[in-house]
Amino acid sequence: MITVLCGGVGAAKFLEGLTHANVDEEIVAVVNVGDDEEMYGLHISPDIDTIIYTLADLVDRERGWGIKGESYQSLDRLKELGAPTWFTLGDRDIGLHLFRRHLLDSGHTLSEVTAQLTERHNLPIEILPSTNQRLRTMILAEGDPDELLTFQRYFVERRHQPTVKGIFFTGSEKAKPAPGVVEAIEASRVVIIAPSNPLLSIAPILSISQIRDALEKERGKTVAISPIVGGRAIKGPADRILESLGYPISPEGAAKVLAPYISTMVIDSVDFDLAKGLEDSGLRVVVTNTIMDGLEAKIDLAKRVLSEMKAHS
Amino acid sequence: MITVLCGGVGAAKFLEGLTHANVDEEIVAVVNVGDDEEMYGLHISPDIDTIIYTLADLVDRERGWGIKGESYQSLDRLKELGAPTWFTLGDRDIGLHLFRRHLLDSGHTLSEVTAQLTERHNLPIEILPSTNQRLRTMILAEGDPDELLTFQRYFVERRHQPTVKGIFFTGSEKAKPAPGVVEAIEASRVVIIAPSNPLLSIAPILSISQIRDALEKERGKTVAISPIVGGRAIKGPADRILESLGYPISPEGAAKVLAPYISTMVIDSVDFDLAKGLEDSGLRVVVTNTIMDGLEAKIDLAKRVLSEMKAHS
Repeated sequence: MITVLCGGVGAAKFLEGLTHANVDEEIVAVVNVGDDEEMYGLHISPDIDTIIYTLADLVDRERGWGIKGESYQSLDRLKELGAPTWFTLGDRDIGLHLFRRHLLDSGHTLSEVTAQLTERHNLPIEILPSTNQRLRTMILAEGDPDELLTFQRYFVERRHQPTVKGIFFTGSEKAKPAPGVVEAIEASRVVIIAPSNPLLSIAPILSISQIRDALEKERGKTVAISPIVGGRAIKGPADRILESLGYPISPEGAAKVLAPYISTMVIDSVDFDLAKGLEDSGLRVVVTNTIMDGLEAKIDLAKRVLSEMKAHS
Repeated sequence: MITVLCGGVGAAKFLEGLTHANVDEEIVAVVNVGDDEEMYGLHISPDIDTIIYTLADLVDRERGWGIKGESYQSLDRLKELGAPTWFTLGDRDIGLHLFRRHLLDSGHTLSEVTAQLTERHNLPIEILPSTNQRLRTMILAEGDPDELLTFQRYFVERRHQPTVKGIFFTGSEKAKPAPGVVEAIEASRVVIIAPSNPLLSIAPILSISQIRDALEKERGKTVAISPIVGGRAIKGPADRILESLGYPISPEGAAKVLAPYISTMVIDSVDFDLAKGLEDSGLRVVVTNTIMDGLEAKIDLAKRVLSEMKAHS
């Protein structure tokens, strides 16, 4: 078994490579839900949905999220009626959110809904929300006065422009891992932290104490792929957030967040000069191409990570 | 002021005539909510929506409900995912239901949501839900075993095929009239019961005791337009339901339901031979063309009803 801790777009690309890498082990994705948002009664799980759409080849490849060839009739109508429409929801995407609402209202857990979605899309992996409880990433955004925003309000509505002064995970004290999460971490040969934003996508998973404890114990078999390459985030605001919270904008910044949970770090070839410093801090370092700009590159990265961890174990 | 008690399609057509009849009085529609249904977290108010779509000239004229030129991307997706999709929801229609959910979740009443929708569509009338409380028309449908169905499950999912053994209005004991309903009935010069199904569309309004009491007191100024013409319902199952519950399939059947609340009944010219019997039962009867097969016919009917009630008062 291989477990992958996942945010959205970067993780989805990595999983695409992994599922095409002729792995004969079961793959389990443990996915961030701190970004989830309720809107018009819909329950939106952006990271889970991005992974589903990507693996089902429904995804809009240009954006990295949402469904290709979407229409926006419902959203246009909401706009006409004067509802807030800062969050882009296509009609087919809304269909999935209505389906999720329908099952949640019938008493199913987010895990169960996600399992049904995985099955209906014939996906070759198991997708587990990190928790079935309400856990939300809240951003303290600089302003006058400062504001506490849900992740989506910060990320989408404010286009991740405000300086981040703090990140909080409300509900994390009470949140239990979803069924199977700790078991997957324990039973896996390798645990991979996908190249996702460490502070916004991985930290909410780590904010659940039982997951954090399991990962600390399994540190020896855990590897993280740095989402910071050449001093910049591949996508999104990870670089600016690392900076504003006092972390280096480099694999070292990611390592600072993830070090207690990993033994190995994969960094991009352009950052080869940082390997020594990371090794000195006690990490094993793998230097390779981490830019997943096509299926081949995704598969190569997945294979390289797995072979390194096999060689190491 | 003129108040119209309304179901869906027939009432919407009548209101279309009334709003084009150069009436200089305020028009208030008091609309049935017994048909409302919650689905995928959406709150659907079919009768209110049909009236809005019709008066806003958005309606699919062929069907009499829904929006013309609709797309069904969300519903197709729900179908693919295996959700129950017996209720047809177009993408633009879903936009309105999401808007309603959004406002209800923000603490607004159905009245307030309806007022916003009326304003956003620039409609020339006031639309009041009969109540803001949960009141649902439940159908006891013949079968083995008999089943208690929500109105939409009976009407749409079962295509109104089961024999109706009974009709119940759950929540009616506790339901209060929405703000303005009783006031409108009391202040109006004329109260018109639209040509809607008396047992399924008007009876749920009458099931609210304060509305019933107000109507009984204002009986002298109240007129009903028979939805039964030539022994058949213009639309829907009113004829079969009247029959299965022991009412004549004729204006007399409608009169039996509505008699305590009306002084005048409008019947179609083809039913002229029934006028005498209705008059003998104590009703004033107006015989005219009630088939609203075009805007002219709708306007003529509205004008005729108003002039009769003026002459009478």
